[in-house]
Amino acid sequence: MAEGAYRVGVLGATGAVGSTMLEVLAEHDFPVSELVPLASARSAGARVRFGEEEIEVVELTEDAIEGFDLILSSAGGSVSSEWAPRFVEAGAVVVDNTSYWRMHDDVPLVVADVNDDTIGSHHGIVANPNCTTMQMMVALKPIHDAARLERLIVSTYQSVSGTGRQAIEELRSQSRAVLEGNPAEPSVYPHQVAFNVIPQVESFKDGDDYTTEERKVMRETRKILSLDESVGISATCVRVPVITGHSESINVQTREDLSPEDCRELLAAAAGVVVIDNPAEGLYPLATAVAGRDEVLVGRIRRDPSHERCLNLWVVGDNLRKGAATNAVQLAELLHQRDLVRVPEPQVS
Amino acid sequence: MAEGAYRVGVLGATGAVGSTMLEVLAEHDFPVSELVPLASARSAGARVRFGEEEIEVVELTEDAIEGFDLILSSAGGSVSSEWAPRFVEAGAVVVDNTSYWRMHDDVPLVVADVNDDTIGSHHGIVANPNCTTMQMMVALKPIHDAARLERLIVSTYQSVSGTGRQAIEELRSQSRAVLEGNPAEPSVYPHQVAFNVIPQVESFKDGDDYTTEERKVMRETRKILSLDESVGISATCVRVPVITGHSESINVQTREDLSPEDCRELLAAAAGVVVIDNPAEGLYPLATAVAGRDEVLVGRIRRDPSHERCLNLWVVGDNLRKGAATNAVQLAELLHQRDLVRVPEPQVS
Repeated sequence: MAEGAYRVGVLGATGAVGSTMLEVLAEHDFPVSELVPLASARSAGARVRFGEEEIEVVELTEDAIEGFDLILSSAGGSVSSEWAPRFVEAGAVVVDNTSYWRMHDDVPLVVADVNDDTIGSHHGIVANPNCTTMQMMVALKPIHDAARLERLIVSTYQSVSGTGRQAIEELRSQSRAVLEGNPAEPSVYPHQVAFNVIPQVESFKDGDDYTTEERKVMRETRKILSLDESVGISATCVRVPVITGHSESINVQTREDLSPEDCRELLAAAAGVVVIDNPAEGLYPLATAVAGRDEVLVGRIRRDPSHERCLNLWVVGDNLRKGAATNAVQLAELLHQRDLVRVPEPQVS
Repeated sequence: MAEGAYRVGVLGATGAVGSTMLEVLAEHDFPVSELVPLASARSAGARVRFGEEEIEVVELTEDAIEGFDLILSSAGGSVSSEWAPRFVEAGAVVVDNTSYWRMHDDVPLVVADVNDDTIGSHHGIVANPNCTTMQMMVALKPIHDAARLERLIVSTYQSVSGTGRQAIEELRSQSRAVLEGNPAEPSVYPHQVAFNVIPQVESFKDGDDYTTEERKVMRETRKILSLDESVGISATCVRVPVITGHSESINVQTREDLSPEDCRELLAAAAGVVVIDNPAEGLYPLATAVAGRDEVLVGRIRRDPSHERCLNLWVVGDNLRKGAATNAVQLAELLHQRDLVRVPEPQVS
């Protein structure tokens, strides 16, 4: 383990994920010598909480990027595409929560407790997976190790906080409007999200009939678990009127037989997973129960009667914590423990 | 088509489905000579609307069951188990919306426009399928006819009105409480339903790890489409904070290849289906858009990349209308058109 403490920047510090990063960093007692919250001009000057301190947000400019050891970034993809390489050039390792770098060949895409060892190959940027993918990986890795994944069919129930603070406000204000008999005005989402479900998370691009979110789930899963093309993945991503906590109905086909009992046992022993599976007593994972927790909850583990090597699972995670901020901090810890908080020299090729 | 008009009773007339039955009966101009709303003692004396009329609710008693031609019943299963045979004995045909009679061998389970011809075999009781199954059948029958179903994997997003009026009130009052920062008190459901999703619809019985609702979807689908055991069905039924309108993510595997384009075309031509499928323009089925409509909406029709003969669909229906009341009225119309509003003589065996 490396010694000392780091000068850490949190980019997008006033957002839903950024502020959770500050919270988790403080909870985890990460060795920070100085913390600098960074954001766009709009949020500069605001004050954010880090443990017992209140710190002023610094505007992200050319002058502000020097002298960092580590950046946790949760600004948008376009900000990240531009600024992550600059931070790396200035000597910092960037743990990036946007989708921009995730599928780049020389950027490891890492879920703590799932594919930790891949982090060693970083060239300055480590990518934090998509929230929906993240919690699924935590539940599926032990199953993959025990019985090899063959096919995944996933339908999601995704909360609005994954979109950000404005989406939370939109759900609240639309809910109030509907309860008072008034029309709900959509702004962040293309349709009313209060008292509705929307079979679109993110956007449809270039005539694709899958959303960018669904593509992320399918591609990132493949990269994180090193699955070849013989493993099939199908995703349907759906927005539901929940504030925090993504739920997932996952149909898992394995190459070897795995009983629900064995699955329950191996998940109960897995890092970062809590099995809650006594449905007759009303015990199964719930979005309202996961908010604020770092573990992924798994339940309703049962055989799919339509296939001899299929199980159905219900997987719930806090999309802001394990789905984003907690994993980013866990990656920072991994980098620290393995003495990887430094940008390797570019190789001559 | 039979002539004349019928003395019709609506049992459970004050409930969410019963009152929708009255609404749809009036809209469809069904030939009614007299309409009698029936309910338990608790609701007797209340007044319900039928077209332009307001009619007093009559208590369901031994004395009240005589003289009916047709009963549309949406009381609970236990009421139906006891009273449906009595109505039949007194000469009425019963279209029953509870689960009690659906799987009985000599009771046809009929979705209008799907398996109409099976209605001819009734012995006095015709069963109206479960709402979740109903809308799925309307979307799947044309696919089954064209390419033969091989396997179905379904995850649902079910609204609270399927549970009844108290559940609607619970969702509203819990939503208000949460918005005001107060705790949500569960009563109808085992957990908070506002701003949450619950992976339990109905109950877990006798140690089964599937709910009674999931079993209904799997069994009723098999009966309605006459599917043998070689066709696999897997269901995960989930309650979401939506007032009316069930949504379903359906993964359909067929024996013959069916392209998304052909699927779209055959569904667009099918009775009772509306295809809404231009996702790039934000056009797909939504619960908020289906409320009050009799058709089933289908969209997001696309190939599942994990299997060469699989499509993913998004299917949305109004659970109170096509999922319950509309189909019951359509069955009454079928009975009328085919001169089947009469109880056949019991056969000597």
